[in-house]
Amino acid sequence: MKKILVLGSTGSIGKQTLDVVRNQPGKFKVVGLACNANIALLEEQIKEFKPKFVAIGQDSKLKSVSRKIFYGEEGLLKLIREVDCDLVVLAIVGAAGLRPAIETIRAGKSIALATKEVMVLAGKLINEEIKKKNKELQKNKKPLIKLFPIDSEHSAIWQSLASGRSSEIEKIFLTCSGGPFRNKIMEELQTLTAEDALRHPTWNMGKRITIDSATLMNKGFEVIEAKWLFDIQTSQIEVIIHPQSILHSAVMFNDGSVIGQFSLPDMRLPIQYALSYPERLKNPFPRLSFTQVGSLTFDKPDIEKFPCLKYGFEAAQKGGTLPTVINAADEVAVKLFLDKKIKFQDISKIIKMTMDSHKNIENPTLEEILKTDAWARERALKISKNLKRNN
Amino acid sequence: MKKILVLGSTGSIGKQTLDVVRNQPGKFKVVGLACNANIALLEEQIKEFKPKFVAIGQDSKLKSVSRKIFYGEEGLLKLIREVDCDLVVLAIVGAAGLRPAIETIRAGKSIALATKEVMVLAGKLINEEIKKKNKELQKNKKPLIKLFPIDSEHSAIWQSLASGRSSEIEKIFLTCSGGPFRNKIMEELQTLTAEDALRHPTWNMGKRITIDSATLMNKGFEVIEAKWLFDIQTSQIEVIIHPQSILHSAVMFNDGSVIGQFSLPDMRLPIQYALSYPERLKNPFPRLSFTQVGSLTFDKPDIEKFPCLKYGFEAAQKGGTLPTVINAADEVAVKLFLDKKIKFQDISKIIKMTMDSHKNIENPTLEEILKTDAWARERALKISKNLKRNN
Repeated sequence: MKKILVLGSTGSIGKQTLDVVRNQPGKFKVVGLACNANIALLEEQIKEFKPKFVAIGQDSKLKSVSRKIFYGEEGLLKLIREVDCDLVVLAIVGAAGLRPAIETIRAGKSIALATKEVMVLAGKLINEEIKKKNKELQKNKKPLIKLFPIDSEHSAIWQSLASGRSSEIEKIFLTCSGGPFRNKIMEELQTLTAEDALRHPTWNMGKRITIDSATLMNKGFEVIEAKWLFDIQTSQIEVIIHPQSILHSAVMFNDGSVIGQFSLPDMRLPIQYALSYPERLKNPFPRLSFTQVGSLTFDKPDIEKFPCLKYGFEAAQKGGTLPTVINAADEVAVKLFLDKKIKFQDISKIIKMTMDSHKNIENPTLEEILKTDAWARERALKISKNLKRNN
Repeated sequence: MKKILVLGSTGSIGKQTLDVVRNQPGKFKVVGLACNANIALLEEQIKEFKPKFVAIGQDSKLKSVSRKIFYGEEGLLKLIREVDCDLVVLAIVGAAGLRPAIETIRAGKSIALATKEVMVLAGKLINEEIKKKNKELQKNKKPLIKLFPIDSEHSAIWQSLASGRSSEIEKIFLTCSGGPFRNKIMEELQTLTAEDALRHPTWNMGKRITIDSATLMNKGFEVIEAKWLFDIQTSQIEVIIHPQSILHSAVMFNDGSVIGQFSLPDMRLPIQYALSYPERLKNPFPRLSFTQVGSLTFDKPDIEKFPCLKYGFEAAQKGGTLPTVINAADEVAVKLFLDKKIKFQDISKIIKMTMDSHKNIENPTLEEILKTDAWARERALKISKNLKRNN
């Protein structure tokens, strides 16, 4: 049985990870669970999966006492070091996933990565940490560690890449549903509300990622992720609008052959693949029928209407702390939009203005990234206040 | 440099194989060429590729005398045995490819296979021959031989299979352009001519395969091929109509993930992959753009209108000499249709009647297959004469 540690077990990906485990009796053993504050759900998960180790937020209290409990961020890092496991599922929301990611690598454990921010904010750093650790592991003749993407697009690229070598990648087609506002004209975007945005056509996701899908900022983040995960140039990535979300992305190799991965939109598939790799496991999830879907369409994204995608490409290209700035500004702006404090198109304006007021640090340390993250949040908030005053 | 021997060098696949070689200077050395009767083109090919060995039909005469020449079928088999090469491209038209295929395997050489009939007529036999040979090669610690498909659909399946294990195949989606008569109603099929059929929408192919595409008999043959090439059950194959011919086929694995291969319709791609495998090689061939194509559609085949597909499935299921009977009857019927001796729908009728009058031999030898081939041709011709009398 593969021993897995699930960080962020009460979030959307965490819950679906446990559903994958539930559907594969005898294949996986959950040795540890971590969440911040949803204690009620965690208690249920402990009852069902009986992990030896649990980590919770500093101020949370757990009824179950029959197991070892860690508290706060330091406790979480300790859990990562102490637990004997084959794979760490990292599904902590936001920049809070960064330290745990680095701790997991340093502990010589492989990661199934759902937390986008890890590669968006620190892709270069993470790759360097893995390289360093694997050198050490190789020297000591221990198994090397790997990073498995859980995002459906990056999982699709990863699965497609098996058909060639990394050096043979010519181009990556990153598919994008286009979000709920794909067919709106520029003027209509002015008056859209959070409720309009939260009706995502194909994927059932958290609130922030749903708004990020509507602005295409999410796709911008995925461009940055893809660059670091697959060690390619930004110019090798083409984002294509594919509203049906059936083709999850594709790789064009240097001979012109394109390999892509399809399925019904269901996050449990990429999660299961990251867990079971290199094996695939039979499951009872619904199957794709090409003839039932009937038609798959592809279109170019409109970056005039959705400038966030352009910012994502720019940040992927320039690197440094710029992706951190975009991510922080976006998180602030999306929260303000959800709270009805700003308009839909203000999100991209706030991001752009925060970007423009930032002096990029080229090879940032973790501390510099976290400092930039805090700076950008404050800055974005200030910008939003000025924006409101001027409106 | 990989040394390759091209059998059937003046046919459509043979010519495109040499075009692949031409586009990869320094990668491949053509050590031998074989054709039946197109001596004028062969002379040109000899001038360009300077092979050491050449094989031609019994009664053909070659001007170039500076190299070793073999004559007739026995000469061709001798060429296969004698030439030192890494790969034999088998692109001989029809059942005439069978003996050369077996000879290549027995000589311990890998095959890039374009001749459909080899797997349609003798898939089981061929697999057994490869298994036997590889046992011997393994014992003598020599490299094992492989069979690489050149057909675009089977190449797509092969390329997609890299993303999982053979034992993890749940299903294969075999795509089919639907042929030029896809949208005709039953009554219109009555009056269609060879000229109508020869206008194939997407692929540029030989005459027989173009008619076979119009009747969907070609797809029926590919079902039989797929069964033997990938060691799957007939029930695991779904044929889907995909008029754009961009997705060349796909594999659904047991976890529900579907991997497929796309490209513009260009036979040089699967040919090059079979030649360069396990490497991929950069080439100047035109590239697929999803946004230019815009839309990919999928539909169920209409087996009432195109019963030949059903016969293909039946023959794949029952095996034995039944596929040989269908192939032979189809070849006879297509020739009669091209010669305007029968109507379009008579093709499937002749195939069905020939099938019905055959007593299947379950595990046929090569001799029994060739005997059945001859019998079915005669039988189909007789049936067609009765058909005309009754019309």
